[in-house]
Amino acid sequence: MSEGIKIATIGGGSSYTPELVDGFIKRYDKLPVRELWLVDIEEGKHKLEIVGNLARRMVEKAGLPMKIYTTLDRREALKGADFVTTQLRVGLLDARIKDERIPLSHGMLGQETNGAGGLFKGLRTIPVILDICKDMDELCKDAWLVNFTNPVGMIMEAVNRYSGRKKAIGLCNVPIDMQKAIARMLNRPLEEVYITFGGLNHMVFVTGVYVDGRDVMEEVIDLWGNQSVKNIKGIEWNKGFLKQLGVIPCSYHRYYFMGKEYLEEAIEHYKENGTRAEKVKKIEEELFELYKDVNLKEKPKQLEQRGGAYYSDAACNLICSIYNDTRDIQVVNTVNRGVLDELEYDEVAEMNCIITKNGPVPVSVGKLPKAVNGLLQQIKSFEIAGAKAAVTGDYDKALLAMMINPLVFSQSHAITVLDELLEAHKEYLPQFYRKQ
Amino acid sequence: MSEGIKIATIGGGSSYTPELVDGFIKRYDKLPVRELWLVDIEEGKHKLEIVGNLARRMVEKAGLPMKIYTTLDRREALKGADFVTTQLRVGLLDARIKDERIPLSHGMLGQETNGAGGLFKGLRTIPVILDICKDMDELCKDAWLVNFTNPVGMIMEAVNRYSGRKKAIGLCNVPIDMQKAIARMLNRPLEEVYITFGGLNHMVFVTGVYVDGRDVMEEVIDLWGNQSVKNIKGIEWNKGFLKQLGVIPCSYHRYYFMGKEYLEEAIEHYKENGTRAEKVKKIEEELFELYKDVNLKEKPKQLEQRGGAYYSDAACNLICSIYNDTRDIQVVNTVNRGVLDELEYDEVAEMNCIITKNGPVPVSVGKLPKAVNGLLQQIKSFEIAGAKAAVTGDYDKALLAMMINPLVFSQSHAITVLDELLEAHKEYLPQFYRKQ
Amino acid sequence: MSEGIKIATIGGGSSYTPELVDGFIKRYDKLPVRELWLVDIEEGKHKLEIVGNLARRMVEKAGLPMKIYTTLDRREALKGADFVTTQLRVGLLDARIKDERIPLSHGMLGQETNGAGGLFKGLRTIPVILDICKDMDELCKDAWLVNFTNPVGMIMEAVNRYSGRKKAIGLCNVPIDMQKAIARMLNRPLEEVYITFGGLNHMVFVTGVYVDGRDVMEEVIDLWGNQSVKNIKGIEWNKGFLKQLGVIPCSYHRYYFMGKEYLEEAIEHYKENGTRAEKVKKIEEELFELYKDVNLKEKPKQLEQRGGAYYSDAACNLICSIYNDTRDIQVVNTVNRGVLDELEYDEVAEMNCIITKNGPVPVSVGKLPKAVNGLLQQIKSFEIAGAKAAVTGDYDKALLAMMINPLVFSQSHAITVLDELLEAHKEYLPQFYRKQ
Amino acid sequence: MSEGIKIATIGGGSSYTPELVDGFIKRYDKLPVRELWLVDIEEGKHKLEIVGNLARRMVEKAGLPMKIYTTLDRREALKGADFVTTQLRVGLLDARIKDERIPLSHGMLGQETNGAGGLFKGLRTIPVILDICKDMDELCKDAWLVNFTNPVGMIMEAVNRYSGRKKAIGLCNVPIDMQKAIARMLNRPLEEVYITFGGLNHMVFVTGVYVDGRDVMEEVIDLWGNQSVKNIKGIEWNKGFLKQLGVIPCSYHRYYFMGKEYLEEAIEHYKENGTRAEKVKKIEEELFELYKDVNLKEKPKQLEQRGGAYYSDAACNLICSIYNDTRDIQVVNTVNRGVLDELEYDEVAEMNCIITKNGPVPVSVGKLPKAVNGLLQQIKSFEIAGAKAAVTGDYDKALLAMMINPLVFSQSHAITVLDELLEAHKEYLPQFYRKQ
Ligand SMILES: [Mn+2]
Ligand SMILES: [Mn+2]
Ligand SMILES: [Mn+2]
Ligand SMILES: [Mn+2]
Repeated sequence: MSEGIKIATIGGGSSYTPELVDGFIKRYDKLPVRELWLVDIEEGKHKLEIVGNLARRMVEKAGLPMKIYTTLDRREALKGADFVTTQLRVGLLDARIKDERIPLSHGMLGQETNGAGGLFKGLRTIPVILDICKDMDELCKDAWLVNFTNPVGMIMEAVNRYSGRKKAIGLCNVPIDMQKAIARMLNRPLEEVYITFGGLNHMVFVTGVYVDGRDVMEEVIDLWGNQSVKNIKGIEWNKGFLKQLGVIPCSYHRYYFMGKEYLEEAIEHYKENGTRAEKVKKIEEELFELYKDVNLKEKPKQLEQRGGAYYSDAACNLICSIYNDTRDIQVVNTVNRGVLDELEYDEVAEMNCIITKNGPVPVSVGKLPKAVNGLLQQIKSFEIAGAKAAVTGDYDKALLAMMINPLVFSQSHAITVLDELLEAHKEYLPQFYRKQ
Repeated sequence: MSEGIKIATIGGGSSYTPELVDGFIKRYDKLPVRELWLVDIEEGKHKLEIVGNLARRMVEKAGLPMKIYTTLDRREALKGADFVTTQLRVGLLDARIKDERIPLSHGMLGQETNGAGGLFKGLRTIPVILDICKDMDELCKDAWLVNFTNPVGMIMEAVNRYSGRKKAIGLCNVPIDMQKAIARMLNRPLEEVYITFGGLNHMVFVTGVYVDGRDVMEEVIDLWGNQSVKNIKGIEWNKGFLKQLGVIPCSYHRYYFMGKEYLEEAIEHYKENGTRAEKVKKIEEELFELYKDVNLKEKPKQLEQRGGAYYSDAACNLICSIYNDTRDIQVVNTVNRGVLDELEYDEVAEMNCIITKNGPVPVSVGKLPKAVNGLLQQIKSFEIAGAKAAVTGDYDKALLAMMINPLVFSQSHAITVLDELLEAHKEYLPQFYRKQ
Repeated sequence: MSEGIKIATIGGGSSYTPELVDGFIKRYDKLPVRELWLVDIEEGKHKLEIVGNLARRMVEKAGLPMKIYTTLDRREALKGADFVTTQLRVGLLDARIKDERIPLSHGMLGQETNGAGGLFKGLRTIPVILDICKDMDELCKDAWLVNFTNPVGMIMEAVNRYSGRKKAIGLCNVPIDMQKAIARMLNRPLEEVYITFGGLNHMVFVTGVYVDGRDVMEEVIDLWGNQSVKNIKGIEWNKGFLKQLGVIPCSYHRYYFMGKEYLEEAIEHYKENGTRAEKVKKIEEELFELYKDVNLKEKPKQLEQRGGAYYSDAACNLICSIYNDTRDIQVVNTVNRGVLDELEYDEVAEMNCIITKNGPVPVSVGKLPKAVNGLLQQIKSFEIAGAKAAVTGDYDKALLAMMINPLVFSQSHAITVLDELLEAHKEYLPQFYRKQ
Repeated sequence: MSEGIKIATIGGGSSYTPELVDGFIKRYDKLPVRELWLVDIEEGKHKLEIVGNLARRMVEKAGLPMKIYTTLDRREALKGADFVTTQLRVGLLDARIKDERIPLSHGMLGQETNGAGGLFKGLRTIPVILDICKDMDELCKDAWLVNFTNPVGMIMEAVNRYSGRKKAIGLCNVPIDMQKAIARMLNRPLEEVYITFGGLNHMVFVTGVYVDGRDVMEEVIDLWGNQSVKNIKGIEWNKGFLKQLGVIPCSYHRYYFMGKEYLEEAIEHYKENGTRAEKVKKIEEELFELYKDVNLKEKPKQLEQRGGAYYSDAACNLICSIYNDTRDIQVVNTVNRGVLDELEYDEVAEMNCIITKNGPVPVSVGKLPKAVNGLLQQIKSFEIAGAKAAVTGDYDKALLAMMINPLVFSQSHAITVLDELLEAHKEYLPQFYRKQ
């Protein structure tokens, strides 16, 4: 890293990339990125060039000696990289549309991370990520893999179990969103509130909130109980329930505790508007229209409405802290190392870590209540079963993952939806078809 | 026990009692029961007398010096007892009808043990059982409590946590039914097949099957996958799924893995025939008509169709083994004591035990697969939450139990069903109304 | 086994063999041994023939169709065996003399099982046992290995970790001796006293004693505190200490809790009489003189004074229970399988097991007190380190085993004694010399 | 704390106090201590005044508005304090002399922390510390207790178990000394080396060393193996042993792994020079002569030779980080909270923590090797047994602590030394004499 940092971004043609570039520009003082390699595949070449050109204009405007490369040659990009970020989407948004549509058509929530949809995103993505890990071992052994491709939990568990790579971190914006929401509720700047998170990706809980050395968890639970859900009217966490729970669930927990409500809403919404994926596709097209504008030289405001904001910001923050050994606390996905008693020593968890030059080191976040342990174990075993299915291409292992997923709840639907999704994604799941 | 054994049976007016009496008669050589006290409450007086008289005729016909007492005075019956069996039903079958009807009316499986219905049966029953424990401490300190009232898991967890009583065992006929089914499949007498069970009540798994010192689990899984479900056509366990699981689930697992199928069937059936409880009520009435017949001097054949056969037989077996220190293996509900790694040392589990004069001692049954651990933890935490709600009468604690139950799956329904059931069972849930 | 049982006894020329033969004769009704193969090595040929002839006379007198074979061809003996017992002694008693003498010459207890002496016995024996396991996989895959060669703990841990053999059991007479002593104290026949044992070989504790369904542990501890040690005058367990401990230590625990006393006695005794091994050697010579007598046709009384009585009896009992699937309780060394919470699931422990046709199944024996956990962990890690050193022949690994042994207590002595023993046993430790 | 911080130092008349005062002066910018209350008992009044006056001169010279109070009224000092530090010595150095002399006279290492001497220091000190905790609950509920009185492990375990106080931290200078030594070996400034510590007080291990994001543990172990011990010639850790261990033991580990060597040295040294305590007493007297000098206005150089340097510095650092919520990493004694898998969730450990306004939060430090787990468990159970003996005054519980201590190794000596020390310290152990 002596002559500045080299970053390789796989899936560089993503609409998120301008945020990432913006993040590197803002942090240049502390994080001198000299080379940013945006990598994509043939099908994404057109978008890659649009994004690459916008990035070049942004860097130029900032007056920084950061070089932007666009390439279809992943190995070239990985060579000597210091950090590799992955934001790829195997099968593009069309695949996600199927992930949502097919389950919904059988009255089941697809859920792109911890549901049937998430399983299939995992089955498509894991082989690619493991391939990147193999290349990294050869081309940039000491680099860190920073993954923010979903399903982050299943993918990181796969990296943990099936690649030898220790230097790998998974990222999500759920924790930072919750931190901001809690600080706002308490009318405090973020840095004055100490919050502990523990759990799994999209299954994370706030286990403690402290202000001025005082435990204010009860107060926060009281406020949280009133909060209405952004997208769905009338759905709020019941306060009495939250008090008994003693921890604050994240937004994705609603799929389990309010599954019926969400399902009804999803079906109704689907009838009117199609899937969320279809909506995202439309937004993306609009964004790329914007990106083409040669007068645009910065991250456009509209990007924030895309959802998933702060992802790239979180990635930049993480990379910056590793590079500078700042030892500040961030919430990331990494190997538990004994901190969450509910999980095995070697399982991936999402929790508070201090970020050192040697990577994230988990920090005690207390115990999770027994009442949520069942759900936690279910999702962890789902992640493991999904990862195993992804690397073996074994039908029965994929069926196991479907069956133990708490959103599935039906053997006949598990089989039908599995069969339909395997067929629909055939092209991206060669491991399941080699065997037959 | 020097002058023979005294047994007290709480809920003695139950239609099951003739089977119990029959069991004691058959085992008289090894288990000399001199006094059998059948206890019931005022509302059950009439049935108690019918059953008591049948019991007396049965004993007389057998020519045994076993005295049958019928009484409404529980303390009198407990005095100096050696064994106390509990087969009571707070609120009678009418309460169970509500436990099933109310959830079903909201499209939810009531499930009389591990669902919302089971929670309410627990809330009504636990205070009574804890009361019996208190009386036993005073009147028959060294006696064993043998409970076969459902929900056995929640009740035994309550006894374990909230009474000081160590001498308490919970019983279910699911394991013995599975043992018989497996032996039949293998064309072997029961005693030649060594089967290990581990889990919770109505959430138990066969973890191993051995014949002639050979592990035949794979073979049994293969056979089990084909078995169709007695009551519901077309529902079979998928073989590939079972193979991946590596253990054999019990019949109650279908509520979780085939919840949708079961729910649809239950709703349809309900529309045509009313609840299972209503059907049972009819059968019971017919049984009592039979029992009245002064020429009937033995357990009638029809009792076997009642469901829950072998319960009483299992109870007699257990009592006989304790009395004789036979150290044979039976599957019962008792404190885990480290044998199932998935559960805490002090939690109640259902598993193989050797039955000694000092009670059941758990025997290693291997590990449960990770894929079922989530469900296991969910039900265990449900049992604990239910037990806590039962002793405190706290609304929020009952809500917690509803919310974490995997059959509920909806916050709004959790609240509605909870409220309706609390209202419907008001009379039997004074602990929830004292507070208001 | 259809035509009767074949047993192979490795180290068949041992002075213990007549007890084993006697055991098989006594149990012939239930355990029809048709062939007993006594195997030994060239150096033991003479003794093997003496013992073999005595065995033949014993069988003849009993009038049983049991054939006794003596052979130097181990593979011939293993072919098609149903049970293989190992009672071998690599380097014979002369090696044990060195195991005791060399440590003692540096003021350290050699201790033939859990001390430096035991380590070296393990280093010599483990490769031979693993070799037998390999042969068994080939020649008698389904046979059970019943090992009563010391150090049983370390050897069984080695079999567990470094052979694929699951069908292997370690035996010791300490538990049965303690059972008998306790029953005697309580004036009860053995079968009326229920005793639980937990721990490691030669590091086992009585964790519970029950009579007539009553916990009599306190009473037994009270009696045990007074018991004086057979061989050493004036050494008794302090009652107050035992009460605080809450469990009853075995005789080998004295090496740790009364190390200084034992060491002084051992040094003094050594000066006067030489090592225990030297004394045993003399006794053995006398025994073989007896065995030669063609008029001797049964196990001679003098054998009982040899020490280690009941070992062979325990072995016969175990084999008989496996063969007949009796499911009675015996204390053996096998994989813990979660029963002792203090040990890993897969570590070997000594504890109550039911003996089935599928081998021993551990039974809950309660928790060990925290106060002895340290010692337990130390010995378990010593066993593991010793086993690892034995299979690798790595000097540093052997040094680690020495250093963590609680009887060593000195780095300089650890090194000196290690070096001297490695040199003294060079002939039997090729794995340590190949490397240099 | 709005108007500056109030500190109460119990045992304020200690010779260490000037270092503490110096520490507060140096950090005044970040840690504005307005009141420092030095508390002592009647017997220490003279020294208290000497130290108090020196402190006043130091503050005056620094030109800071920090007020120094000296008092015998502990409650007055505690009232409204923000931090309470404890550096007291019940029975003064004369008691420590007995702690060392009596065991040594029986050929046993007294060892003032984890040996028999440490047990007695604990028995004398724990009741006083628990008394301070009680006063704090009343007079300064939200204050932090910072204890650097030995035996820190046993005392903190007592505070943890027998006071309700959560805000309590134990401190030792061993970790910072090791950190400095390792940084020096690597020729790096302290802040560039990331070191993880895990274990118990005076039983702590370095589990990892990282430089520039690289694991350099092997290199450090290699260097550490050569390091000779300061006070005892010729004693070095064997490199091969350390490599097998995989962690770096602290200096106190030599008492266990080189017990014989240490004991011999201690006995020889004792014959020539008396105990370490006697030497310390002489040094202290010289220090107080210096302190009396009215021209001395700063911490004298000679204090550093006293041993235990950096203790006070560590205390000031800790207090400063809590006050400013700096979230930097320090090694302290606090409740484990799941981070060290080898210890219970609620047991006190010594390990890396981030220091927040809410106190220390443990940070993952990896696993300890199995080979040291036995020793760790032994000392933890010794701490627990000692704490229990201290609060109950029960003779047998004290005997248990003696018996399980790995330095004792003899039942007869355990009893003799226990009896002699109980007699020698009678005055300071009223809890053991009330009962008789
Ligand atoms: Mn996310
Ligand atoms: Mn049942
Ligand atoms: Mn033995
Ligand atoms: Mn210290």
